Amino acid sequence: MIMDEEDFKRHLKDKTNEINEIIKTYLPAEEGAQKTVIEALNYSVLAGGKRLRPMLMKEVYTLLGGRSRIVEPFMAAIEFIHTYSLVHDDLPAMDNDEYRRGQFTTWRVYGDGMGVLAGDALLNYAFETMLSASSMKTEYEDIYSLYEAMQIISKKSGIYGMVGGQCADLEAEDEKSLLSEEALLFIHEHKTAALIQAAMMAGAILAGADLETIAGIERCAYNIGIAFQIRDDILDVIGDDKELGKSTGSDAENGKQTYVTLHGIEKSEEEVHRLSDEAMKILDSLGGNNDFIKALVAMLVGRRY
Amino acid sequence: MIMDEEDFKRHLKDKTNEINEIIKTYLPAEEGAQKTVIEALNYSVLAGGKRLRPMLMKEVYTLLGGRSRIVEPFMAAIEFIHTYSLVHDDLPAMDNDEYRRGQFTTWRVYGDGMGVLAGDALLNYAFETMLSASSMKTEYEDIYSLYEAMQIISKKSGIYGMVGGQCADLEAEDEKSLLSEEALLFIHEHKTAALIQAAMMAGAILAGADLETIAGIERCAYNIGIAFQIRDDILDVIGDDKELGKSTGSDAENGKQTYVTLHGIEKSEEEVHRLSDEAMKILDSLGGNNDFIKALVAMLVGRRY
Repeated sequence: MIMDEEDFKRHLKDKTNEINEIIKTYLPAEEGAQKTVIEALNYSVLAGGKRLRPMLMKEVYTLLGGRSRIVEPFMAAIEFIHTYSLVHDDLPAMDNDEYRRGQFTTWRVYGDGMGVLAGDALLNYAFETMLSASSMKTEYEDIYSLYEAMQIISKKSGIYGMVGGQCADLEAEDEKSLLSEEALLFIHEHKTAALIQAAMMAGAILAGADLETIAGIERCAYNIGIAFQIRDDILDVIGDDKELGKSTGSDAENGKQTYVTLHGIEKSEEEVHRLSDEAMKILDSLGGNNDFIKALVAMLVGRRY
Repeated sequence: MIMDEEDFKRHLKDKTNEINEIIKTYLPAEEGAQKTVIEALNYSVLAGGKRLRPMLMKEVYTLLGGRSRIVEPFMAAIEFIHTYSLVHDDLPAMDNDEYRRGQFTTWRVYGDGMGVLAGDALLNYAFETMLSASSMKTEYEDIYSLYEAMQIISKKSGIYGMVGGQCADLEAEDEKSLLSEEALLFIHEHKTAALIQAAMMAGAILAGADLETIAGIERCAYNIGIAFQIRDDILDVIGDDKELGKSTGSDAENGKQTYVTLHGIEKSEEEVHRLSDEAMKILDSLGGNNDFIKALVAMLVGRRY
């Protein structure tokens, strides 16, 4: 085993708290005539979440030798982008969800229109936060790495990344047609894996990694993202109501196609193994103390290493 | 008179066409499994518009000595940001408008959910477009000016700019309460003037202007934005259906408070004069051939100089 379970849980808790503190320092003050949209923005961010993307970013950054606080505004920003996508996904115009993580969704508290604005505010604020990083730049960082980190994050968040995946997902739901394996993979790759890639690649870029290392991280993050998604689909079938926070079998009931409905449990488990093994191999190739990030990946894909 | 009217109209038409060509080169190809959101994005941008913000950006850039194409991705980006704000404003959750400039609004063509996504895609794509500028950087530009132009555009677009103004406006409409002059000015300053400031200030920054010049441009753009807004409110009362494209008196009918309902026509006209005179003075202080930009400002505020 990579890391003793108790040890991992303690580290996970400490690191999550640390990330929450970092995120809080970047949240805007709730004041001025635009106070309501700022409250809605802060409510959305503070409603919880595993902070998985900033955590992966920080781990990769540290693993590759990064030692400064320059990564922090980028950690906050990637969580803001993830949060805005949830705020807009929950809107009546999209999934029409009233609850998320046991709390009212943003639009349910602040209204429909303010829900749209809060998501817009968050996406814009993510870029404002990243662009604030230049003020904390030391002689060890160069402006080009900040610029490149923003480039990869913006690409993986937009039409060639997350928004592209949401578009394909929205159309698949509307049409209720059978998805090809290719179409399903497109959705997972863009809607789920792209932002994990953005997080880990930005961590690598900010640490000054070379192009080959960044390409390895891109593949590694892809594998983690897809394995994580298939594992989620498996849990929907074999059950683990507590862990998943939604009822077993809901995908099948909703007629939703997943990797599991296409290939069955056994082949799905095999695919999770193949993808996560490859991700672990890439992490090992980087050297350094990778105990925590490997334990984190193991948790995400539901395996013991 | 600054410029003969026929001459101005010919220049305006040429410059608008030129900007439309620039914008088109930055629009994404309509392909891939995310084709629909890209179509919705392109539909929104190509549905028309005066291209006022990119035009002002380019004029300031040129006036202050800018001579390269580095300004072009920023011109496209500021129009993308303006367009995303209209796409989201038109949503059923916001103003619920089915038509804009005589065409169906984006959500009316592509559906509610895709309307949300298209706006998100546009805002994100604006940053992708700005971040692409580094690839066309020559020895005459430095990366810091690209970075600073993005900083000012992101700040003026978000909670401390346009989104902040939309929040105050949305609440004012919901509450139907009497607005103070201060509250009204906050909305105009943020919802309308901020993006004009962003456009003109980014033009100045990219041209390598010093801090004092940039501060002057900020004031100049503020005056243009507020004068433009008051002029719009005046036209709503004294009428000019053709020019305005909406029926006279609609603000009063909707119980909407404006500068004119607060202060009357005469004081409003005076304020437009004061603001635009000051803007012209700032433009004159910069030297260079400012005939076209002055004629453009004169047109926007409905005056002859």
